[in-house]
Amino acid sequence: MTKILETHTMIRLAVCIVIGAAIWLVPAPENVDQAGWHVLAVFVATLVSFLIKPLTMGPMVLLAIVFLSATGTLRFADALYGFGDTVVWLVVAAFLIAGSVAKTGLGRRIALAMVAKLGHTTLGLGYSAAVAELILAPFVPSNTARGGGVMAPIMNSLAHALDSKPDDNPERAGSYLMLVGAHSNLVTAAMFLTGMAGNVLVSRAAKDIFEVDFGWGTWLLGSIVPGLVTLAVLPYFLHRLVKPTMRDGRAAQQKAETELKSMGKLSQHELIMATVFALLLILWVSSPLHGLGTGVVALIGVSILILTGVQPWSETTGNSGAWDTLIWLGGLVSMAKALKDKGVIDWFANSVQVYVTGFDAVMVAVLLAVIYFYSMYAFSMLTGHIAAMAGAFFTIAIAAGSPPLLMIALFAYFSDLCGCTTNYSSGPVCIYYGLGYVKASHWYQTGFLVSLLHLGIWLSIGMGWWKILGWW
Amino acid sequence: MTKILETHTMIRLAVCIVIGAAIWLVPAPENVDQAGWHVLAVFVATLVSFLIKPLTMGPMVLLAIVFLSATGTLRFADALYGFGDTVVWLVVAAFLIAGSVAKTGLGRRIALAMVAKLGHTTLGLGYSAAVAELILAPFVPSNTARGGGVMAPIMNSLAHALDSKPDDNPERAGSYLMLVGAHSNLVTAAMFLTGMAGNVLVSRAAKDIFEVDFGWGTWLLGSIVPGLVTLAVLPYFLHRLVKPTMRDGRAAQQKAETELKSMGKLSQHELIMATVFALLLILWVSSPLHGLGTGVVALIGVSILILTGVQPWSETTGNSGAWDTLIWLGGLVSMAKALKDKGVIDWFANSVQVYVTGFDAVMVAVLLAVIYFYSMYAFSMLTGHIAAMAGAFFTIAIAAGSPPLLMIALFAYFSDLCGCTTNYSSGPVCIYYGLGYVKASHWYQTGFLVSLLHLGIWLSIGMGWWKILGWW
Repeated sequence: MTKILETHTMIRLAVCIVIGAAIWLVPAPENVDQAGWHVLAVFVATLVSFLIKPLTMGPMVLLAIVFLSATGTLRFADALYGFGDTVVWLVVAAFLIAGSVAKTGLGRRIALAMVAKLGHTTLGLGYSAAVAELILAPFVPSNTARGGGVMAPIMNSLAHALDSKPDDNPERAGSYLMLVGAHSNLVTAAMFLTGMAGNVLVSRAAKDIFEVDFGWGTWLLGSIVPGLVTLAVLPYFLHRLVKPTMRDGRAAQQKAETELKSMGKLSQHELIMATVFALLLILWVSSPLHGLGTGVVALIGVSILILTGVQPWSETTGNSGAWDTLIWLGGLVSMAKALKDKGVIDWFANSVQVYVTGFDAVMVAVLLAVIYFYSMYAFSMLTGHIAAMAGAFFTIAIAAGSPPLLMIALFAYFSDLCGCTTNYSSGPVCIYYGLGYVKASHWYQTGFLVSLLHLGIWLSIGMGWWKILGWW
Repeated sequence: MTKILETHTMIRLAVCIVIGAAIWLVPAPENVDQAGWHVLAVFVATLVSFLIKPLTMGPMVLLAIVFLSATGTLRFADALYGFGDTVVWLVVAAFLIAGSVAKTGLGRRIALAMVAKLGHTTLGLGYSAAVAELILAPFVPSNTARGGGVMAPIMNSLAHALDSKPDDNPERAGSYLMLVGAHSNLVTAAMFLTGMAGNVLVSRAAKDIFEVDFGWGTWLLGSIVPGLVTLAVLPYFLHRLVKPTMRDGRAAQQKAETELKSMGKLSQHELIMATVFALLLILWVSSPLHGLGTGVVALIGVSILILTGVQPWSETTGNSGAWDTLIWLGGLVSMAKALKDKGVIDWFANSVQVYVTGFDAVMVAVLLAVIYFYSMYAFSMLTGHIAAMAGAFFTIAIAAGSPPLLMIALFAYFSDLCGCTTNYSSGPVCIYYGLGYVKASHWYQTGFLVSLLHLGIWLSIGMGWWKILGWW
């Protein structure tokens, strides 16, 4: 008989269980439902599991809601609540669309075309990567699908074309291209509500706690100025930092042109995909006119892809990323709703109120946002970070009287920008780092300097822009 | 440019759309919400699509709920309601468990052991197939996974071992074995609430319309006597009908023994699977003691399989059958709930009341059940048949004053038994037929005689047993 569980898995599971049990056994504070307190214990244990990863997020969240149901802490129907949630299905639909973007080759074609147009120098290639990310971001709402699935393989093959390999001259171009790819992915993730799967959790928390609709259009309105400035500066900033030794990108440009040619004309499926893209963008942007929600629109896109055979049904049901996300995001939504319904969030807000009164309300928001940003060092997943911190910090901001829209904006964008800090913060970051061009220590140093760039831009230009918008 | 949709797909879609539009345009009857009437139109169009299959059930249901949301007929959250439904997640959990049963080889081992013990003659093999089905049925809650995934491949290899092939001596043993496999699968599907994925729809309709809990235990209580009698008679009945020319099954028995030996001892994963089986059965049966719902119990089983590595998370999220079912069953549940909430079901019940008054209440139930049974000829899917007819017929029975438990029992069991009529009624039937041993005309003739056997047993012994139970 072999061991059923690896020792390190068992130890990590035990850590989660001990932490959960410790909270569980503490009596619930006044005004907090005992069941609510128990949900909090399981929720914290689940968040700890995101950090130390005995298993991935999906199975841990499933275990959490099964445990909550089996102990009668939550009614089974309430534990399943999130699986019928509208934002959860927006993300599921996004994953389904991402599957077709990758499969039809349209995403790769767009990226190659950008490189062919802009790739004269490594700096040009850096900018072309940033622009490709920007163009793909509104359409490919999973930053992992976009950065890891579409862009990273292209960046890797570009480095190879420039005779720069992980073990042979990575500093020639490869390390620069990987860093540009990863960091611009996080910026575009921040710019769109649909730029990263977990962003909806911020939007949802904004709705739940501030009762503010921070939807697709509002999100972009706030990010457009500081986001474009960041994307304009970032490739140059990294170029100065990393100093790739090769400056001529014509080989890569050639390679992209050759690959583009070998792709031939737009296939019928790419054409349909492009049409669906256009339709989705039009419907998302025109939402105030027709009133269709973001999720319905995304599912209309999925329906068209299925009807036209671009996405056979077997690929829809076989898109395991979509169902993984349904489970962990759905389960988190169920737990977050229970925490709110059972008074835990209100209790937390009341508890911290005494600590933040007296500070300037705007200052509190900025301070909380910076703490939030650097707390990412302790998290292994952008979404886990959001789930753990955003709601709690929002309640502190409420207590301090911080301007809701300023607070939401800071947290919305910092939720993704903070991924610059480490090499394990998000799927595409892990992939770019894993390609092996950049040493861990180098990644951390660069990441810290990028974090200063982000704070510099978003706390000055960003806050100035939001002032103009009247958000504070 | 190739055609995006095949002509026959377009025609079939057009038929569904025309039928739906025709109903949509009729003004809603008095006391029926206009939106409810529109849901009915889309629901009927969806059911028509199950019959004529422009696409499979999953995409058609998805299109239906997207259409209902996009037109504002249903709120998006209401259209997604079924995806968080507890019975829907029971079925999803069942599919996940079925995946592990097949993968660990435990299901195959059980079937082989039965053949090795009972397979002296083709008649013995027939009985061994029926017993294997009976043993697997409570554990493998998808009749397609059980019949199509586990049993059919074994039956096929058994026929081969007996020198009976589709194009070479099928009458020697193959045609008999296929018919026994298919028809006993339908009987065991009928015997357990978890015997077939769609059975929960009957249980749900019983709850919605009669307010009767017809759960796992009650379902089995009603089926145990007539079900065992049917399984005891069926292999012999078919043997007399089909008259396989080979009577000695020792070769097959030998083959099963060899295969069993080559499987070696129970693997660790099989052992865990068997333990989970036992635990599920104990928890399902003891539900009145601890109060855990069927779905929670099933998810506890899934959690154990995931935790112990029997079912890696990638296989959970990669189980496309589970997610296909989530979508079509979830969407049907959303629509069925809307029909009820918006007064359509009540209107239907009131409308038919005038036609059934005057008849004997028990007679009405039996008559409805027989009509229900043979209406299966017009359906290509057991579940579609249930979804279309059970609720409506229940409302007629209410109007006629039929005993609820009698009516529910007749419909619960006939919902699966009626699959005997055609060679396209259910997944495993399609698979057994598709193996090619039995001609279509032969399948129909045999199926009709089996239907008479079923009606004979279940309307006499069955109704007698239910009388003893006090169900009417």
